[in-house]
Amino acid sequence: MPQPPFKKIVIFGVGLIGGSFALALRKAGMVDEVVGFGRSSGNLQQAMQLGIIDRIGEDVAAEVGNADLVLLATPVGQMAELMARIAPHLGAHTLVTDGGSTKSDVVRDAYAQLGDKVAQFIPAHPIAGAEQSGAAAAGADLYMGKKVVLTPLQENSPQSVARVQAAWEECGANIYRLTHEEHDAVFAAVSHLPHLLSFALVHDLAQRDNRDVLMSFAASGFRDFTRIAASSPEMWRDICLANHHALHKELQIYIAELLLLDKALEEGDAAQLEQTFRSARELRANWTEK
Amino acid sequence: MPQPPFKKIVIFGVGLIGGSFALALRKAGMVDEVVGFGRSSGNLQQAMQLGIIDRIGEDVAAEVGNADLVLLATPVGQMAELMARIAPHLGAHTLVTDGGSTKSDVVRDAYAQLGDKVAQFIPAHPIAGAEQSGAAAAGADLYMGKKVVLTPLQENSPQSVARVQAAWEECGANIYRLTHEEHDAVFAAVSHLPHLLSFALVHDLAQRDNRDVLMSFAASGFRDFTRIAASSPEMWRDICLANHHALHKELQIYIAELLLLDKALEEGDAAQLEQTFRSARELRANWTEK
Repeated sequence: MPQPPFKKIVIFGVGLIGGSFALALRKAGMVDEVVGFGRSSGNLQQAMQLGIIDRIGEDVAAEVGNADLVLLATPVGQMAELMARIAPHLGAHTLVTDGGSTKSDVVRDAYAQLGDKVAQFIPAHPIAGAEQSGAAAAGADLYMGKKVVLTPLQENSPQSVARVQAAWEECGANIYRLTHEEHDAVFAAVSHLPHLLSFALVHDLAQRDNRDVLMSFAASGFRDFTRIAASSPEMWRDICLANHHALHKELQIYIAELLLLDKALEEGDAAQLEQTFRSARELRANWTEK
Repeated sequence: MPQPPFKKIVIFGVGLIGGSFALALRKAGMVDEVVGFGRSSGNLQQAMQLGIIDRIGEDVAAEVGNADLVLLATPVGQMAELMARIAPHLGAHTLVTDGGSTKSDVVRDAYAQLGDKVAQFIPAHPIAGAEQSGAAAAGADLYMGKKVVLTPLQENSPQSVARVQAAWEECGANIYRLTHEEHDAVFAAVSHLPHLLSFALVHDLAQRDNRDVLMSFAASGFRDFTRIAASSPEMWRDICLANHHALHKELQIYIAELLLLDKALEEGDAAQLEQTFRSARELRANWTEK
């Protein structure tokens, strides 16, 4: 069912995620006015110049009271405080969604901070690259063909979920639904753990006296394995802390796997090493990124 | 000092490494005749058709007796047997080099199998991609601008080392010298460990009932981190076993690092996580692959 445009959208955090959301909805003709809030006035000025937002917000209470949609696109560590600021002023018809990479913590914050307005909050996680940041990195096509995972709350009405889903769909995204627990377990395994492992390897080398010699012999395999170790330290600190339960579980499984491999090395167990590598290769080589 | 061409080169294992060595030396006008040995007659026929070799070898004794240079380009697990086959027949002026990814084991094999001809063996490790294999994957430019690490033995004469070095230089490679112990410690850290970690992560997921759901949400970070998990299981089995001492040491350091990170997660130690990630990011972002 075609959805009417949003008269006013308010975006907190006009960076890659928030700015691209605004640009994509503008391009789709789905929004009349975009108001931006953020901590850096320089970034907000740039967002104005780039046509991402129409106005820089000054009064949170006034702006969120009559907004159709509010996007929380700050690091997840700032969501609770932000929710507390907007909660008293949210209009009865204002919907809220977010762009956080973890969901259980954001949902917990929402129940704690939004109170009886929690039904207006439909949590979302757009799976889109985050190596660049700031308004200057935003683009109308960022979400085109990408996945957005919604983790609706039992309090959400079907109409509210459909309205937020339509906004992300208008950005070009493919929508999936998981519970927030499922979401966090899945992303601990396929995203958060690999980031932690990559950071850990490079940190391990960075501490050594001969790091320059070591790095001088690093080649293409190392380059790809460690590309994600150049990701934002603040963002990944927040993600790891926010999802520490699921990540701890993954780490334990992974360390147990490494100990088995170490044992196979020590015992010269060629068959087990080969079987492990073969099973990995089969899954990886048959995987097609969708 | 310009080196005269090689009248005859014998290559054992005419795949990516061996075949590219032949093609590069041909292109440089540095070889008159190339003879190939291998386990797959189909691959050798293809190498003939592609102009990589002039003849398929039949009599090891006859071919290595009057060769200028022999390249051992088989998996490292087969080197000992191969050395035993050529040792009795090596001519007094025949030099031998190899393309193995590990060096301490190859050097140990050389001392054990070549006996008093060990001075004729100059170990080498060309750092060139190995995701494809077989003669069809070989190319004259594979080594252009790549690193080749020589790990000379104390028995090698300077003239022999210079002659083998010149061959690799004629392939377009930049030459480095390390002891075999240094070599294996360096590559355990920057190559063998990352491969093991990547294989381990994908194997870990491959064993799970919900692997298809997990893989459906894997994105670009996962793609890069796990690219090397699609490498050859046999080749990496051999490398890991051959370098198991150095790799075990690296694994122990890495597991200790993961346990520290796990503790930081459990304690909510944001500062330590951020410092770890920041240190990794700094080294990785400032690294320029040479």
